[in-house]
This record gives sequence, C-alpha cells and structure tokens, in this order.
Amino acid sequence: MTPDQTRLIETVRARFGDKAVTTDPDDVAPWNSDWRGRYHGAAPAILSPAATEEVAAIVALAADAGVALVPQGGNTSMVGGATPPADGSALILSLRRMNRIRSLSAPDMLAVAEAGVILADLHAAALEKGRRFPLTLGARGSATIGGLVSTNAGGTQVLRFGTMRALVAGVEAVLPDGSVHDGLAALKKDNRGYDLNQLMIGAEGTLGVVTAASLKLVPAIAARAVAWVGLESPQAALDLLRRMEERTTTIESFEIIPGDSLDAVLGHVPGTRSPLEGRHDWHVLIESVAAGVSDEPPSKLLERLLFEALEAGVAQDAVIAASEAQAEAFWHLRDSLSEAERASGPAVQHDISVPVPDMPRFMIEAAAAAEQRYPGTHATAFGHLGDGNVHFHVRAPAGVDRDAWYAGDAPEISRFVHDLVVAAGGSISAEHGIGQMKRAELERLSPPARMAALRAIKQAMDPGGIFNPGKLVALAPARGAP
Amino acid sequence: MTPDQTRLIETVRARFGDKAVTTDPDDVAPWNSDWRGRYHGAAPAILSPAATEEVAAIVALAADAGVALVPQGGNTSMVGGATPPADGSALILSLRRMNRIRSLSAPDMLAVAEAGVILADLHAAALEKGRRFPLTLGARGSATIGGLVSTNAGGTQVLRFGTMRALVAGVEAVLPDGSVHDGLAALKKDNRGYDLNQLMIGAEGTLGVVTAASLKLVPAIAARAVAWVGLESPQAALDLLRRMEERTTTIESFEIIPGDSLDAVLGHVPGTRSPLEGRHDWHVLIESVAAGVSDEPPSKLLERLLFEALEAGVAQDAVIAASEAQAEAFWHLRDSLSEAERASGPAVQHDISVPVPDMPRFMIEAAAAAEQRYPGTHATAFGHLGDGNVHFHVRAPAGVDRDAWYAGDAPEISRFVHDLVVAAGGSISAEHGIGQMKRAELERLSPPARMAALRAIKQAMDPGGIFNPGKLVALAPARGAP
Repeated sequence: MTPDQTRLIETVRARFGDKAVTTDPDDVAPWNSDWRGRYHGAAPAILSPAATEEVAAIVALAADAGVALVPQGGNTSMVGGATPPADGSALILSLRRMNRIRSLSAPDMLAVAEAGVILADLHAAALEKGRRFPLTLGARGSATIGGLVSTNAGGTQVLRFGTMRALVAGVEAVLPDGSVHDGLAALKKDNRGYDLNQLMIGAEGTLGVVTAASLKLVPAIAARAVAWVGLESPQAALDLLRRMEERTTTIESFEIIPGDSLDAVLGHVPGTRSPLEGRHDWHVLIESVAAGVSDEPPSKLLERLLFEALEAGVAQDAVIAASEAQAEAFWHLRDSLSEAERASGPAVQHDISVPVPDMPRFMIEAAAAAEQRYPGTHATAFGHLGDGNVHFHVRAPAGVDRDAWYAGDAPEISRFVHDLVVAAGGSISAEHGIGQMKRAELERLSPPARMAALRAIKQAMDPGGIFNPGKLVALAPARGAP
Repeated sequence: MTPDQTRLIETVRARFGDKAVTTDPDDVAPWNSDWRGRYHGAAPAILSPAATEEVAAIVALAADAGVALVPQGGNTSMVGGATPPADGSALILSLRRMNRIRSLSAPDMLAVAEAGVILADLHAAALEKGRRFPLTLGARGSATIGGLVSTNAGGTQVLRFGTMRALVAGVEAVLPDGSVHDGLAALKKDNRGYDLNQLMIGAEGTLGVVTAASLKLVPAIAARAVAWVGLESPQAALDLLRRMEERTTTIESFEIIPGDSLDAVLGHVPGTRSPLEGRHDWHVLIESVAAGVSDEPPSKLLERLLFEALEAGVAQDAVIAASEAQAEAFWHLRDSLSEAERASGPAVQHDISVPVPDMPRFMIEAAAAAEQRYPGTHATAFGHLGDGNVHFHVRAPAGVDRDAWYAGDAPEISRFVHDLVVAAGGSISAEHGIGQMKRAELERLSPPARMAALRAIKQAMDPGGIFNPGKLVALAPARGAP
C-alpha cells in the first residue's frame, strides 16, 4: 500500500466509519478477481460509501492524492471491467452499500435506484406496484444498476424495449474531481448541450462513478405466450420476425438456436426434451407479452401469426407452450446453450453484432469461414437474432490440449472472427463492453480517428486518470501509482 | 475576407467546382441571418460540398488554415444556432447539396439519409414504401436531417417514439480534423466505448459535421383518430393521459391548450370554431394511431377510453373527429396557437421542460408567479404535456412600448421564468437547443461542474475551435479569426 493510499483509507475510515473501509485480505480477495477467475487484481482495500456525498468526498480525496479507484457493483463483468490492476495501484470503490430504491412511482412509470440496487430487487419492487423494469439477464441476482448503466447492458429482452440506454431516464454520477453531476430529473426533452447522461452510459466507470439512475418502467406482464419454431435457415427466421413485426409490437424475445446446439443441450442437460417431434436445422424461441387489458391475448396472437407463417412456408413446425411450466421449459433450453457448449469441449466465445438484415448471411458464412480456416473446429452462432447480436462460439478440434489451445489458437481465432465482424460493419462488443479483455482488439480494429476521439474524451473528463485505470482506453497511469 | 479564407475558398472551387462555392453577397445574405431575422452574421462565403469526402476535404483544409465553419441545413434554428458570427470570421458550410436518401428499406424499417435531405422529403419517401418517419414539426418543409440530428429535434409526435435521439440508429460525421466518423451501421447493440453517435446528436455542429444518419422507421399510419377534450385543470389532463397510458400504447400526441389561448385563436384566426359547445378552462388534443392490422381501430379505442374518463369525472366533455377534415381542423386550432399569441401583442416565449408529473403544478404556479412579479403581464403555457414540455409565453401589459419592453422587461422576465424552471429541476431548452440565444442563460444556470465538462468535451474534440464558433459553449476563437 502506498502512503497516499494509506492516508486516503484512514481519512475515509475517520469520516465515514469502519463500514466504509475493508482491508482484511480475505474480505477483499473475492472482489479482486472477476467471477470467472480470469482476471486478478491486487487492490489493497475496498472503500464502500453509503451515499452520493460520501462517494463525492472519497473521489475528491482520491483526486487530490492521485489514487486511482475502480468502481464496482456486483462484479459480474464478462470482460474484466471491474477487476483492479494487478500492480496494486488502485482501490476498489464498491457501490454495494448504496442499495436504496429512492422512489418508484407506478403512475409515472419511473424508479430512481441507487447504483448498488441489485437488478432482481428492482424487478421485485416494480412488480409489487404492477410495473416491470423490462431488462433482464442471467446475472440478475448479482448485477447492480450502476454496473448495468455503466456497461449499457442488454440481455434477452432488448427487442422491444432496448438496452439500458433506452431505459435510463436520468443519471447521477460523481465526476473525477469529486463534483456531482445531477442528471436524475426524468426530462423527456432536454437540449442543453452535450448529453452527459449519455456519456456516462456505457463508459464502464472510466469517466464518472454512476451513483443512481432514473429508470423507465412499463406495465407488468398481464399475459405472455412462448413459442418454439422449427425452420430451415437463419434467413427464414429473420423473415418470420419481419412478418411478425409487420403485425404486432408485442414480440419481446426472438432467439435463434441451431439444431446441433439444441442436440448438445438435449445430450448434456438432464431432463430436457425437444419441443417439436421432428429435427430442424434451426429453431427460434419467441415470446410475446401483453400488458394493456385491451391487447389481444398473446397466445391467440402467436397462434394466428404462426399459422400464417406455416401456411406461407416460412416456418416448418411450431408449438406454443400450453402452460407457464412449458414456457419455462422452452426458456430453459435456450438458457442451457452456454452450459451445453461448455460441456462439449473448449471453445472461444464472441459477443458480436452486425446489422440485423445482414445477420442470417453472417451466421452461415462466418461459421463456414472459421471452420475452413481452422480445420477441426466447429463454429455455432445463437442468440438474439432480433437484435443482430449472436454469441459466436468456435469449439476446439477434438482431442486438442485444452491449455495450449486456449493460449495459442483461441486468440488467433478471435482475431479472425473479429476481422469478419468488422468487415460486416459490426461490433466486436455487442453487450459486454471492452473492459480489459477487448482493449487490444478495440485498438487494433478501430479507425485511428475513433480511438483518438475516445482518448481525447477520457483525457478531457478524467485528466488525472483516477477512474478505472486500464479499462476501455489506455492513458498514462494516475499520478500516485507505485 | 481574410487571406486564409480566400485561399480556402479558391482551393475548394478548384477541387470541387463552382457549385461548391457561393460568394455573391446577394446569394449569401439570406443564409447570414436566421429565419426570424433576430441574428445577423457576416460570413463572406458559403461552401457547399456534394459528398462526405468533400466535406472531409474542406474541413481538413479549414483546420489547416484555422478558418472556422458554421454547418448549416435548412436554417430554421430557433436559437440562432446556424447563424455565423458577425465578425466575418467563419464561412458557412452548407449541407443542402447532400440531399440523397442513400437507402430506404421497408422490411428493415431503416433509412439512410444525407444531412441535406429535407424532413418532408423523407416523410414522402417513407410513405411510398408503406413506412413512416415518426417525427414532425412546423419547419418540415425546410428543416434538414443534419440539423434535426444536431439539435435532437422534437416536435408534436414525441410522446410515442421519442425525439431524434431515439430515432437515430447511426451517424456519419466529419470530425474537426477532417477525419470521417462512420457510425452509420444500424447496430442495435454496440458497446465499444463512449458512444460518439450520441455525442453528435444535439451537439449543434460544435463537435462534428453530421453528413448522414441512419433513421428508424415505423409502419405507416393505417388509421388515426383525433379527439378534443375539455377539462378543468392541467392535473385532470395528466390524469387522463395516465389512464390512457395504462390501457394503450397508441397515443402519439397529447397537447394541452388553455381556454384563453383557444379564445385567442377563435378571435384571431379566420374560419376557426370550437370543437365543443361549452367553454372549458383547459383542453387537450389527443391523437391515437393504429399501424398493425390487428390493432383496435383508434376511433373505437378513443371512444371507449374517453367514455370511461367522462364517467370517472376526469374529463368534462369530449368529441372525436368524425372525418379527416375535422381532425385537420382540430390540429389547425393547436397549430394556430403561436400565431394567435403573436396577434395578441408582444410576448416573450420559453421552450421549457420539467418532469412530466410536475408539469401541471408548474404550469399553474409559474404563470401565477410571473403575473404577480410583473403586473399587467399575462402568462400562458401550452403544448406537449405528455413530454413535460410546454411553450411558456408571457405577454406584455397592454399599451407598453413594444421595443422598450423587448429590450428591457422581456430579458428580465425570461431570467425569472428560467429560474423557476431550474428550481423545478427542469430544462431551459427542451427542444430548441442553446445556439447563441441561450448561451448566457446556460452559463448562468448550469452548475460549474457541468459547464466545465461541456467545455472540456468541446476543447477535446475541437481544440482548434473550427466548428460553429460562439454556439453552445464559448471557447477562444479559431486561430485564423480576424
């Protein structure tokens, strides 16, 4: 621990009490690595403010001392975005004690939640008032609002209501000099210059520490219907989506699943069975949700639309879940894809997006290109077709040495896949952000003008390099680094 | 004209032809003043590139020479945002020749339009393919896509589909060093660091020149219904909106009109008549639109919802337009409010927003406060209640000297109104931006941390001060200024 860090920690303890400081190595350790154990930091302490003013005071002190801070919520980053540097130069700034839902208004369809509120808790609080916060993801039991805002999180229900960016009505954040940006007021129209709220969303804590957000709610689900459809190709799946979008705005999920991925689930996950009798090369899982009492019942709507699609030859077979239990069983198949893929052997995964209309061709062509370039590999793409976002996995050839493959071929394959994505005008990070994992690839694949702009913004907002060093864009280390 | 400007102009003429340069003072003059004649610039020439590469080349040359450029589209700014400085230090960079719709896909519900495309032309092109670009405003016959993006424009149909920020799927812009930011690919999920597209939206051409945008389309209107409702208060109006939002997502406009404003329209605008028999203190105009074939017919839906509202005592009286002509007549009343207000005498207008739930109280209390503080004035607020955005007009006392009042009392009244808006957590510019008109008020009313952040961003992105000098935030003038 540097003398500056020690002084900062002691000042924080004196001003905000023992609860605001964690230095016991056993207590700090779990937060020094990411949840998958891929990145390992060495922060000597965690600072845990309980209120925005405490965050502001700590940041002002850290800025004065030149001590870097790594904001952290549920520590569920997929790209090492919340793991501190390994050189011990930064302290963790945990927002988990800031877990109040400051307000939740059913008539205004708005909630103000502090950064440390866990997503599942917000879901529950909204539901109690007949409302819904319509963004969800696997880590909902740990992921916090601050992290979700800072990573512009997505998930399985982006199709209708968008990513966090579309759901955030206001942001409160502490800037690198310790001042508070109060942008919480939920103004539907506000044109007072550059939108600092937008800049904080997806900035991965490198420009400011998000301390609270105003969030848009929607009516609670009155009824939902879940369908499983077999089709011959990703293009048929997109055609089906287009037909449905033409007729309704109630489709909330449209997930594509290759036949062999379903086979892997059926083979590896106990208790699963295929929703359809025959085998199909591709499947989609569709969820339609009714909120207003005047909406057509979603099962009736899906039935009608799918009947038309079968008639038109767009779909090969389809079934609508007859019960909530069956609907959950359909979703369980979808949610087990990653687990089944993992059980099938070492694989390298990519969180990528291309424009929606280009996705069917990309899925086929990129998989073929990867398999041809790296013989013996097996490439599959599945996920959020309606968002133009799939998880693109390339499985290692059978019998390879796991560690050698991860160290050697895997990064090369990733670069190959990313090159294809960039050639298709897509993004090498659809949902997960850049963090530390994708920084080199971001540098390699971004036009120089774009990287220059990102660096200029970081430098302008955080000239001392106080916030989340080593993530997203690299600048010189903070003054007080050892 | 400075020697640097002359050299730049001649280079542009040599490289891109006579059409790219306008120096005849008679041809330049109309673009040197804003459309209301309030701001007067003295640009010695207009540069009119025909393609993105030409914009890029011109900007690179201008950056080298230190010559400032004022991007301009339809010149319909309400805040002098496109009027060049009066000292002749900047040239106008007109985007009007870049008026191609590069693509418009009905199935993908996307258009790519160049900066100079006029809004009404985009409307027409979308309609031809059974689609709609769901943003409209009075200046639609002149306003261009580049300006609409750069001002994050709003209008009368923001309630359902949002402002430009929600409708822009991608941005192409030339940065101040002449490099091109190509963010046109319509990626629904893209988390590659700070979102430069978002930064360009609403930046008023001070960070980059928007050259094209990818824009989201929605299905064309299948049927619409327009209702006129009499009620006792703004709070009753908001209650009515809330009831409707609970039951449907098809409400696209919800405009509030005070009884005396309607009286002014009926008195000043020939051929108008009140939709309802009795007199009401407040009115709302509601438009409901059906797009999908499965939607309930909007007239039936409105009838049902308004019947319930009348039963519940939320509304006093209501009528649904029986024909398209009657619907247009209702809208004509709404659209004539500004004209009628102008005919009623000198007034100072404010484009303001507060959080939606606070708007009813604000409308009443702020009007009362202004009238009490400035005896003899008459304050009215009308407009986009559903967006929390009203036009707040304060009319001069009868018999005052027009010019003296505009020079003396009006600015003081504006500061008074803006103080009330800020106290209510609102915005002094809901729709129109800052431009040159509101720069002093932005400085006066923004927390120092916010102004520092805006300046830091401007300085970081445009260190030479090349783009739209004197708008939004003040920096030192460009190197080559006379």
